[in-house]
Amino acid sequence: MDHFMRVAIDEARQGLAEGGIPIGSVLVHRGVLLGRGRNRRVQLGSAVLHGEIDALDNAGRHEASVYRESVLYTTLSPCAMCSGAILLFGIPKVVIGENQTFMGEEALLRSRGVEVDVVQSPECIDMMQAFIAASPALWHEDIGK
Amino acid sequence: MDHFMRVAIDEARQGLAEGGIPIGSVLVHRGVLLGRGRNRRVQLGSAVLHGEIDALDNAGRHEASVYRESVLYTTLSPCAMCSGAILLFGIPKVVIGENQTFMGEEALLRSRGVEVDVVQSPECIDMMQAFIAASPALWHEDIGK
Repeated sequence: MDHFMRVAIDEARQGLAEGGIPIGSVLVHRGVLLGRGRNRRVQLGSAVLHGEIDALDNAGRHEASVYRESVLYTTLSPCAMCSGAILLFGIPKVVIGENQTFMGEEALLRSRGVEVDVVQSPECIDMMQAFIAASPALWHEDIGK
Repeated sequence: MDHFMRVAIDEARQGLAEGGIPIGSVLVHRGVLLGRGRNRRVQLGSAVLHGEIDALDNAGRHEASVYRESVLYTTLSPCAMCSGAILLFGIPKVVIGENQTFMGEEALLRSRGVEVDVVQSPECIDMMQAFIAASPALWHEDIGK
């Protein structure tokens, strides 16, 4: 498995160990990790700190040119907010752990020229499906359902 | 002017006084203010705390049913990330201070059934245009340009 997807999964597992929703993400610029994060709805009582938003936040401030040479890794297909962040910053490529449990805005991303690479990792699928089976209300809260 | 747009403008002006980007936002549920926020890129070194994201964050965690009866106010047309957050949570209406300085993803929002009400407030326009004239690099950083 790609090293950076491994880091994203490690973030997701850390979130799970904290009692959180197991979704992790990493922002990578030209092969260098800029920021890593995980969903922290439970840990920080935050509705907006999805894994991707947390990774972008932890990466700090950058000029547009940095994002335009970056790749965002995420263990789960990105929701509308996180896909919107990808579009806002002009991140040209996203690598997704899986989209079987949840299908985010991949079609919108592709329609705007973003390269979308879905790994369909059994580890990511098992992790999310076990979590949702155990905590369906928390999962629905996170995706506004 | 609508009371809640007034609060959003007050948030924007507070951000400006802090050296930040003057965009404010308020989340309102059935006439009750749930959260207020402002762009805090400069203040917290955050790439993701746009006004709308900050307001949603400050509102705390809510079930989907709350968002579906809420209105988001923002002083400036919402970017792709903030529009995505509106779609994620199923917020049915957004009231926008102005879209002359920056046109966000209003067409996407409308295409998904969100009611988009643009006030075109001269106060909002003047505030943003004066800010951008004074700090063009910071503004471009905020919108990934």
